[in-house]
Parts: sequence; structure tokens; C-alpha cells
Amino acid sequence: MQSSPRILEVRQKVLKQNDLLARSLRERFRAAGVFVVSLVSSPGAGKTTLLREILRRLHKTHRVAALVGDLATENDARKLAESGAPVRQIVTGTVCHLEAQMVETALGDWNLAELDYLFLENVGNLVCPASYDLGEDLRLVLLSTTEGEDKPLKYPTIFNTSDAAVVTKSDLAPLTEFDRAACLANIQSVRPGLKVFEVSSRTGAGVGELLEMLAARRALARSQGLAEASHAP
Amino acid sequence: MQSSPRILEVRQKVLKQNDLLARSLRERFRAAGVFVVSLVSSPGAGKTTLLREILRRLHKTHRVAALVGDLATENDARKLAESGAPVRQIVTGTVCHLEAQMVETALGDWNLAELDYLFLENVGNLVCPASYDLGEDLRLVLLSTTEGEDKPLKYPTIFNTSDAAVVTKSDLAPLTEFDRAACLANIQSVRPGLKVFEVSSRTGAGVGELLEMLAARRALARSQGLAEASHAP
Repeated sequence: MQSSPRILEVRQKVLKQNDLLARSLRERFRAAGVFVVSLVSSPGAGKTTLLREILRRLHKTHRVAALVGDLATENDARKLAESGAPVRQIVTGTVCHLEAQMVETALGDWNLAELDYLFLENVGNLVCPASYDLGEDLRLVLLSTTEGEDKPLKYPTIFNTSDAAVVTKSDLAPLTEFDRAACLANIQSVRPGLKVFEVSSRTGAGVGELLEMLAARRALARSQGLAEASHAP
Repeated sequence: MQSSPRILEVRQKVLKQNDLLARSLRERFRAAGVFVVSLVSSPGAGKTTLLREILRRLHKTHRVAALVGDLATENDARKLAESGAPVRQIVTGTVCHLEAQMVETALGDWNLAELDYLFLENVGNLVCPASYDLGEDLRLVLLSTTEGEDKPLKYPTIFNTSDAAVVTKSDLAPLTEFDRAACLANIQSVRPGLKVFEVSSRTGAGVGELLEMLAARRALARSQGLAEASHAP
């Protein structure tokens, strides 16, 4: 994001283009019956480690896949593929966020109808990804206990545009000056009512509750999708 | 940063404009004899806490000041002002990085000739700040032990454009899976020869070495500045 009036104008056009493509992606996901979850956070907040744990658990009972974005390296895709789920890396070069076009291109020949869940791990960045709809059903914003409890106040847009928050590295909280009450209050002050999960991908604590929420939201999305289909002309 | 050709073209113009303004800022800083250090990192890597410790120590013997950038809140300026040094907050709104223009505006009526050191704390973001010269003498990139040692490989540009790296939260390293050797090797692989400092702002470990480097670099810059002045027509 840039500050000059000219670039803001061009940016509006790019965003509008992205929104249109995201909408068509969302329709495609819905038609295929795949529930799509994106993850956003600072670099190092634990997106990949949490996603690896999620894929490892879900892969036993569901058909899952993931796309993972980074400026450089395919390290995350390799890490995630250890779960046994199909994973593709999106290398963005100098681009600081994923866009709907990158998701569409990376999906390639995947048959979405053969998937129950698709996860989209964004580039580590608490600012720019907030503005780009990827067609996901649910956006998770992660915040690690080692980052400090003030982040929701300093990066309000990404919390405002997310559907649930995940406080990661909960096992490290007692070892740092992390103020849990202040963190939860800060999240609620920028996004009242936002559901918050507290997890440790290392110990596994809290990951089960997060998966239950995803399953419930997926069931809801499917029932709505079926209702819409039955009302179609 | 965006991916469309049109926005890339406009972005080039903005960057060029920024570079020109940064160059004039750099000349102004040099003429005033103030040594300018910028700090970049992920959100929550510890820029503010390290800077507070730096200001607290330097304030006793030198004339120091700081500008601190955030999308929202003036929390960091308040925290830093506890050091006794003059501090101004730059609130960027939705802009994910500082630009030379913001620095110039925030400096306002400050008499730079009355300063020995000026610190510029960028917005927490490992991507976009890399492209914007702020006229600083030295750019420090921070990486916390809790973020993981792979970050230099995944965000190479910000390490490539920095003059020294600071590994923060070294007191937490033994409590996490932080692989120190891999971290140092990764930094060297993207930027061979980059000087690395390991600090804990909580215990104060390593901060003295960092300050010694800044003092040495400041002395060098001043001697070059004097040499240039004596050769001026």
C-alpha cells in the first residue's frame, strides 16, 4: 500500500479486480463443496506449524489440501507435505500478500470436488493481506504470545476482516510478559464478539477446539449451500 | 506492493520520488551531524523494547530522539518517551511502511543540529519497508528467536538491504526450538558478511555491543562528513 493519490487510484482498480475474481473463486469452492480457510499473521507467529498440526489431524478422516504463500523458498510446502496432504507453494517474489489470481493459478488441475477442506496460508504480514479477498469461507488471524498483546490495536484492519482469532504459542505465555487479559480485551475492542482460540501447536493444546469450530462452520456452509441449490430455478 | 503491470509502473515512480527525498534528507542529516538509525522487523520482534533500552542508555550521555511508525495508536511513542528522550509517533493509517515524506513531516521544527542520534522505528513488516530509503545512515533488521530461524530465507530483501542484523529475545532461545546455528547460517547465506548482534532487551545482554557498533559507525560517518566538508569548494 502506498500513499500517493495516483497509486491509491490504481490500487482501487486492482482491489476491485481481485474482489471480482475472489467472488468467482468463492462460487467455485461452494459448488465443489470444499470449505476454504485462510490463515494470516506476522512472520513467525506459527501459521505453518499450526497448519501442519491441523493437516496431520484432519488428513486421517477428511480430504484436505493446502496452498502456502511465501516471498521465497518452498520450505513451508515441504514442511506441510509431511502431513501426507497435497500441498502447493505459491512463491510471490516481492509481493507481500496473496491475491485471488495467485490462488486460482496455483489450484491448477486440482479437482476441488474431491476435497473437504482447503487451507490458504498467506505471506507473513499483518497489514497488506487484509485487503485481499481470496474467496475463502473463513479467515483466521493468528497472534503469538511472544509478539505482545498490543498487536490488535496496532493492526486493527486485519483483525476486523477476520472471522476468528487464534492466540498461538500458548505454552510460551508463562515465560514471557504476555498479558492474556489485555490481549483478549484488545481483540474485543477492535472487533467485538470475535471468537478467540488459544492454542499451542507444540503441545497440541486448543487445536481440538479450533477443529471443532471449523467442522461446525463447514457443516453450516454446506447446509446453506444445499439450501441455496434446492432453491435455484 | 502489487502485482499488476500498471501498479508496478506507478510504484516505480513513487519509489523514485521517495529516493530523491531520502537523498535530500540524508544530506540534511549529514549537515546537521546527526547519526540516523532505522529499525525494521516483523510485528512483535521487539523493536520498541530494544529501542527503549537503547534510548534509556544513550540518553545519559548523548542527545537522542526517535520517530516511531505504526498504522494505529500512539502507544509506542508513549513507551519510548519513558526514556526521557523526545519521541514523535507517525500514524500511517493503512500504509504498511514509513516513507521519506512521513519522516520529513514528522521532524517538523526539530533542530537536528542539537541531536547526536536519531532513531526511526518502522512499521512492523518484513516486506514493504525494504523498498523505502528513509535517508538513514544505518538500517538494523531485527529477528526474534521466537519467530524461527528460517525468516532470512523467506524475507531475503529486507536482510539484503540492512546494514546489521539483531537477533532479539535471546533469553527465550533456550525455551523454544530456536536453532541458533541455522539462524546465523541463514543470515549469512542471504547476506554474506552481515554483522549480527544477539540481544535480550529484558536482561540487557548484548545491548552494549550493539551500542559500541553504533558509536563506531557514528564516529566513522562524522569523520567522513568532516573530510567531505573540508574538501568542499
